[in-house]
Amino acid sequence: MSTDQSELNGIVALSVWAAGIEAIDDSALMERASDAMADTLACALAGREDEATRAVAKAAELSHGAGHAALWGMGRSLSMAGAALVNGTAAHALDFDDNFAPSMAHASAVLVPSLLAMASGLEPVAGKHLLTAYIIGIELQARIGHVMHPDHYRAGWHATSTLGTIGAAGACAWLMGAGSEGIAHAMSLAFSQAAGSKLQFGSQAKPTHAGLAARAAVTAAMLAKSGLGAKEAFATGPWSFAELYNGNGKDFDIDGLGMRWALLDTGLMVKRFPCCAASHRALDGIETMINAHGFGLEDIAEISVELPDMLARNLRYDAPKTEAEARFSLSYPVLLMVQKGSLSLFDFTAEALASTPLRTHFEKVRRVAVPMGPEGPNMPNKITVTLADGKILQHVQHDLVGNGSKALNAGQKEAKLSDCLTWAKLSARQAEISSACSALESSKDILTCLAPLA
Amino acid sequence: MSTDQSELNGIVALSVWAAGIEAIDDSALMERASDAMADTLACALAGREDEATRAVAKAAELSHGAGHAALWGMGRSLSMAGAALVNGTAAHALDFDDNFAPSMAHASAVLVPSLLAMASGLEPVAGKHLLTAYIIGIELQARIGHVMHPDHYRAGWHATSTLGTIGAAGACAWLMGAGSEGIAHAMSLAFSQAAGSKLQFGSQAKPTHAGLAARAAVTAAMLAKSGLGAKEAFATGPWSFAELYNGNGKDFDIDGLGMRWALLDTGLMVKRFPCCAASHRALDGIETMINAHGFGLEDIAEISVELPDMLARNLRYDAPKTEAEARFSLSYPVLLMVQKGSLSLFDFTAEALASTPLRTHFEKVRRVAVPMGPEGPNMPNKITVTLADGKILQHVQHDLVGNGSKALNAGQKEAKLSDCLTWAKLSARQAEISSACSALESSKDILTCLAPLA
Repeated sequence: MSTDQSELNGIVALSVWAAGIEAIDDSALMERASDAMADTLACALAGREDEATRAVAKAAELSHGAGHAALWGMGRSLSMAGAALVNGTAAHALDFDDNFAPSMAHASAVLVPSLLAMASGLEPVAGKHLLTAYIIGIELQARIGHVMHPDHYRAGWHATSTLGTIGAAGACAWLMGAGSEGIAHAMSLAFSQAAGSKLQFGSQAKPTHAGLAARAAVTAAMLAKSGLGAKEAFATGPWSFAELYNGNGKDFDIDGLGMRWALLDTGLMVKRFPCCAASHRALDGIETMINAHGFGLEDIAEISVELPDMLARNLRYDAPKTEAEARFSLSYPVLLMVQKGSLSLFDFTAEALASTPLRTHFEKVRRVAVPMGPEGPNMPNKITVTLADGKILQHVQHDLVGNGSKALNAGQKEAKLSDCLTWAKLSARQAEISSACSALESSKDILTCLAPLA
Repeated sequence: MSTDQSELNGIVALSVWAAGIEAIDDSALMERASDAMADTLACALAGREDEATRAVAKAAELSHGAGHAALWGMGRSLSMAGAALVNGTAAHALDFDDNFAPSMAHASAVLVPSLLAMASGLEPVAGKHLLTAYIIGIELQARIGHVMHPDHYRAGWHATSTLGTIGAAGACAWLMGAGSEGIAHAMSLAFSQAAGSKLQFGSQAKPTHAGLAARAAVTAAMLAKSGLGAKEAFATGPWSFAELYNGNGKDFDIDGLGMRWALLDTGLMVKRFPCCAASHRALDGIETMINAHGFGLEDIAEISVELPDMLARNLRYDAPKTEAEARFSLSYPVLLMVQKGSLSLFDFTAEALASTPLRTHFEKVRRVAVPMGPEGPNMPNKITVTLADGKILQHVQHDLVGNGSKALNAGQKEAKLSDCLTWAKLSARQAEISSACSALESSKDILTCLAPLA
């Protein structure tokens, strides 16, 4: 294979680039990857008892065979393919896992479970090696996302599984030392499994898509490693990924590979709150205003939030009746923030919602949709709080905690881990799990290091 | 769930119909299903040593865990998902397996491996029950195919995997006694895994698509059986199967369900020759002409075949240089038929092609493309043989042996089985395997019955 990337088709060029990486020596990148890994594991532990996860685990145990890949927090293991399926579903079950803008996908919920399942079949894998594979997988997702979006997402494809699995397959192949041809074939074999419609949003199939994508990535990497061939130039032309999946017809973008990294440039959107990301900027703003002005629930006459129309539409349940509706509401989380100063997984249950006194305040929260500007979903939110005494407070929230370079701080990370582990009935093991995640990067054997999570 | 099918969306109506079937009491249908099962098993045995199958088996054994589902002809077993993946690939590896016009798919290569993998996890399954599941799966494929084709196939989707897996998932769910809701959810969860582009034709990913689809069907049925929910109305509307996969926007066709059967109406196209189906009608015609006129290779000045343009394009290698090209040639198989009166898997190897004296005759065979008429690919072929002495013989071949109601006769079936088993180095077990297949319909326990194939 030539190494002059300019002459190669996109997927081959990406594979040649990935295969050429021995290690990444960038502490900022490594820190982001390590944080993402820990965050995804926490979400998966929290999701282990979700109804969808339990159904998937039952089916996988009957159909996917025994093996050495841990089902996190379940105290048992399964074949690589089975574990990827179960852990991927668990990671996405509560929709608390990260988003990644370039691929418009829940990137880590596919990538982390597939990489850890792969690792169960390899010689001890060092933490740095795993994190490098993660970083490569994120970059591949970004490169593919650049030419597929926005049409791919708008058409109705669930990019978490379609794009996620291709990036993850490349990363899994890299992890097991496949050369450039193996990496290219793995991505092509993932293309042959890329599926999932947003029509399934609102059903248990949605989180399962992350599990199916993780399984597809593991399968693709294993098939490629076993020598199975596939067409490498699948980005463009007749019957290509672009043609079948609404891409813009351009080949995958390879400009500046290794010089800039999407994980640093755009970064992940790591959730601090267990509800739709569209409400998070407003929640940050309300928190800031409470800290500045000290108002409580009874002080409020009205809260109005101006946010881009696309996000306002995602939050259409102004008076949510179910926990699922509560996750896609603006009023409920905003009032929770005013009431408690924080949000927890325990706020999004049928019981919590049925018994909440907040429902008498629902109509005080106004969702004001404004045309989305060039910043897209990252447009500032303007918040106006009218107090009962007639005083009007205003605040424009620009940043979003957990988004891009604004990573969660140590306290926020610990609070999220605590929420996840309490939910998962694993809080007694928080210190142990927390230090396992912290030790990951310097670990010589990630599976031994992460054993407390198994 | 209502049973007034006219009020239901297509997938629910299909599921209600399927769930209501206890048994099918139609000997013609049962015979077709039994023949298809035997033919698919023969193809899978022949495909067991194919390079693609071996790579897939190696990957599946490392990643898909142990279990009780047989890998046919390999003397070992694997988890259901793993066995479906391997056996599906084997069944399609040599492209000798059947086609089914309504779904434009290699129907049985997905359906048979998935059903038999499922059966490994169930109480003993009777032959009639298995064949009923097969018949249901074929009907589901036909119903879905009616509204997806021809645009779906023309766009570049490999319908063997995309449509095949949805029909097979419904059949697998029926086999394990899922009710109508479980069958609908299984088909929807197969929709969430439906993938595969014709871009992979010419690579080892192509046969693997059948295996991946069989695995997806097993997975979908197991997930649904474990209680995982999914959106049932996935045929039409925003983000639906029709919208993402180029259907015509109509809901699945439920007219006359159970009154007529696609397996009888259209029937399968069961291959008698191990090469592209586009050449088969001409091969039948040449065979008839040889039998009538007794000419041999040296008697021929020219053979011209008029066939529809779409099929003529599939046979573009007039002077094939590789075994793959030989399979998609008209001249090579036609000359083989003149030379030997039959075609075998052994004719399509690199060695056979390199050493054949037929190459000196390649230019005598003329491929004449004519516009495809309303009969589509079933248009008659007109064959003109000009003998060396100037005599001109003409024949119009209407029927195609193995197609629709023109099933292979006992001798043709036995010859194909013999070819497959000799190729698979299992010819010593032909009598045993043949009687196992014959006994399938009356068997009380299909796995015991089919043990000679394991």
